[in-house]
Amino acid sequence: MHEELREDYYALVHRLSESSRLGGIMGILHWDQEVIMPAGAAESRAQQIGSLAGVLHEKTTHPEMGRLLDRLCQSEENGFNTFEWCNIREAHREFHMATRVSKTLVTELAELSSRAHQIWVKARSENRFSDFAPVLKQLVDLKIKWAGCVFPDMEAYDANIDVYERGSTQKDITPIFDKLKAELIPLIKAIQESDYKPETSFLSGQFPVEKQEALGRKISEEMGFLFDQGRMDVSVHPFCGGSHPTDVRITTRYRTDNFVESLYAVIHETGHGLYEQGRMQDGRDLPVSEALTMAVHESQSLFWERMIAQGKPFCTRYLPLLAETFSHNFKDVTPARFYEAVNVSGPSLIRVEADEVTYPMHVILRYELEKGLFDGSIQVEHLPDLWNAKMKEYLGVEPPTDTLGVLQDTHWSGGAFGYFPSYTLGAIYASQFYQALIRAKPDIEKQIERGNLTPIREWLGTQVHQQGRLLSVPDLVKQVTGENLNPDNFLDYLKNKYRQIYRLN
Amino acid sequence: MHEELREDYYALVHRLSESSRLGGIMGILHWDQEVIMPAGAAESRAQQIGSLAGVLHEKTTHPEMGRLLDRLCQSEENGFNTFEWCNIREAHREFHMATRVSKTLVTELAELSSRAHQIWVKARSENRFSDFAPVLKQLVDLKIKWAGCVFPDMEAYDANIDVYERGSTQKDITPIFDKLKAELIPLIKAIQESDYKPETSFLSGQFPVEKQEALGRKISEEMGFLFDQGRMDVSVHPFCGGSHPTDVRITTRYRTDNFVESLYAVIHETGHGLYEQGRMQDGRDLPVSEALTMAVHESQSLFWERMIAQGKPFCTRYLPLLAETFSHNFKDVTPARFYEAVNVSGPSLIRVEADEVTYPMHVILRYELEKGLFDGSIQVEHLPDLWNAKMKEYLGVEPPTDTLGVLQDTHWSGGAFGYFPSYTLGAIYASQFYQALIRAKPDIEKQIERGNLTPIREWLGTQVHQQGRLLSVPDLVKQVTGENLNPDNFLDYLKNKYRQIYRLN
Repeated sequence: MHEELREDYYALVHRLSESSRLGGIMGILHWDQEVIMPAGAAESRAQQIGSLAGVLHEKTTHPEMGRLLDRLCQSEENGFNTFEWCNIREAHREFHMATRVSKTLVTELAELSSRAHQIWVKARSENRFSDFAPVLKQLVDLKIKWAGCVFPDMEAYDANIDVYERGSTQKDITPIFDKLKAELIPLIKAIQESDYKPETSFLSGQFPVEKQEALGRKISEEMGFLFDQGRMDVSVHPFCGGSHPTDVRITTRYRTDNFVESLYAVIHETGHGLYEQGRMQDGRDLPVSEALTMAVHESQSLFWERMIAQGKPFCTRYLPLLAETFSHNFKDVTPARFYEAVNVSGPSLIRVEADEVTYPMHVILRYELEKGLFDGSIQVEHLPDLWNAKMKEYLGVEPPTDTLGVLQDTHWSGGAFGYFPSYTLGAIYASQFYQALIRAKPDIEKQIERGNLTPIREWLGTQVHQQGRLLSVPDLVKQVTGENLNPDNFLDYLKNKYRQIYRLN
Repeated sequence: MHEELREDYYALVHRLSESSRLGGIMGILHWDQEVIMPAGAAESRAQQIGSLAGVLHEKTTHPEMGRLLDRLCQSEENGFNTFEWCNIREAHREFHMATRVSKTLVTELAELSSRAHQIWVKARSENRFSDFAPVLKQLVDLKIKWAGCVFPDMEAYDANIDVYERGSTQKDITPIFDKLKAELIPLIKAIQESDYKPETSFLSGQFPVEKQEALGRKISEEMGFLFDQGRMDVSVHPFCGGSHPTDVRITTRYRTDNFVESLYAVIHETGHGLYEQGRMQDGRDLPVSEALTMAVHESQSLFWERMIAQGKPFCTRYLPLLAETFSHNFKDVTPARFYEAVNVSGPSLIRVEADEVTYPMHVILRYELEKGLFDGSIQVEHLPDLWNAKMKEYLGVEPPTDTLGVLQDTHWSGGAFGYFPSYTLGAIYASQFYQALIRAKPDIEKQIERGNLTPIREWLGTQVHQQGRLLSVPDLVKQVTGENLNPDNFLDYLKNKYRQIYRLN
């Protein structure tokens, strides 16, 4: 390799590290805003975030960045190893995504999203979709325009999906979602009609916040979360944030009448947190070590939440700890009863409260509507009727208000179209990964029953966390599971599990 | 005024606001680091702070900034009002301070300070001044070099002072400090020799942290601190930080065997916090609204801590609240006894633990040594002996180790020469301001006794906080007090107060 090419690569690494650090600072600003910031600072914080976003944009689109990338990308036969080539490729993608859009469009999108969010908050609280519709239409139009600039060869909706789930297109997703629909709608109906209902009364009661916090912290720690390189706090919506793999911050929220929600939020966010803490030691300030896609991130949180913590071995292991913590409630509860209680399934109106069987239907509904909005087959004003009809068809329930229906999610108000599929792709990956784990470590369920969660974290670490962005999602899934993205596993898992719990056939 | 000049001013304001917001972000990074950051994130945080400092430097020294300032400063007769002119003048100062120094020197100073700090930490803990001496010498040399670049017309030590206390030089400070020395050394000796010792046993005991916190929060709130635009937390060293006048964050620390230290730290930091929260409503993202100098900031914290909270009316007012909070300790304590107990004075080795009578001697000692280091009359290797001799002369005590002597402060290790005088100038301003307050509101002590602290905050707000940087320090002091910086007030205050407490003459 030419000496100069090597110099160019080092110059690129220097610029990427700087952007990564500034991005980490943005992480702290967001975390602080959600967790700790005084209410009166909302306006000044918004301006700080705006200024830092401007600096990041300047750094990403700096002309020198373009010159470096031009030289570095001249040939793929340039002697860079996969680690180095990944950084170049990622920087190239970022640069083009940022520079192919005019500053006017960027500003227009940022302002419209900010305005739309405020309109949505009000429209949702007042149950007036018609107030939100005009700005939603503008957002869709602008996002179609944006897609034409950034990925001119893609369909507009695919371009939007690509932001969160690069490489996945409607061509891949639609058949998978159709299959899920075909199999899950009857399963949901059968569960609904079953005479057997798991007993859940022992999950109700009074659960002091300190006890919940100690419990969550203990389980998070046993999962492998490093509290000297992270924190656990409280926020309105649980999330995983922070500024660096050595500074990973998860949150939960507490209700004194329900500990399950908080505990499983901790487990879910710890799953995200372990991905971040587990990033490869080299290149932690470079794109190569970053989480691959939203769906892969979600596969990690769902892996721990659904595949592990809602499984029998985990319920068996942790029931005694629960009984010790909340002795009043868990006197005569068996592991089997606890397992069934945390796996209750039933149709509901709100996505974020849905269980693992019904959740995909919420996602598919949104996916189909977004698809229609972007290909022009659906008009914004018809969304509420279509939403309600699909809810009826897929889940057998109908929202009494738009607040509990089409207005429930924040995503569209921020222009985040194409994000929803990631949730269900993540759930599918999680079940495929779990099968692979069982093949790799046949005694893993026994280990879980003994409270040894380390092999899980280590396996996910080697297989996923430390892989960073070296591989594409399809290549990673193939490498870990030996097969492609495949919903069969996920469907078999759901059918077997819930037929057993609900005593179906 | 020319249209274009107006445009230039708006362009300057835009750039200054951006820098102010990025500076606010730096405030959050520092606060987070001291209060909440996981220990394992130290290295990544240092790199984030480094990257943001780099961005701020780029913004401050941007060539366009130079062009704008050149045009704006062409003539002072350009029709800008004092508010606008202040922003131009401040930007000009910043620009020249940043651009007159070569990048090599900046980097050298940053690296040396960072290294020196680590060497100092170790040297202090091992009581080995000789380990610290070589790097301290290098720092002084580099700071002399730096002064020659930035303020070539000033003496090197004056240039260093100017960073914290602009406009103040040795010519002003030395006679004031000499006068303090002449009058305080005998007073300290007389206090020391007095047979009367205030009774303080009731300040010892067990004071639960929750009670201390509630007490501090209540008093801070009564002083006027807005908790919806600020926070109170815990850190190793109490400080006031944050990111904006709407996001002001004070800290304290708790010892269960001593509540006075924590409470008075809260009051002190609240004094700083009120200055920040009280900044003028217009231009909060511009230099014009910023705190004037370190000494003026310190005048605000000391005003509340010393002039108000160590005064008789405050002790009278808050004794019942203390008695209610810590009933066991305050059974038979009278306001007079409480007042005397919080005003105990006596020589000690450590500056940060010193009382208001002895504190100036700690400062003067450091000032004289710094002065000698910069004019070449003192060599680094002689510092320990000189330190100990001066301690003996000024306070009658001698440090048994350098850890308790010349190695105690962090300032020199970070290259912050010229900072110490601000503490004592602040104390002098505080006493002058207090006299002015009494003249303006003759019934203020009665108000305090009634628990009405609002007039104090309002008066400081109008007189100091909202003045921002519109005036120079001498002009501000003249405007508020009708006189120049004058230690007589401060000396009279100390002599009267402590003669009474210690029953002298």
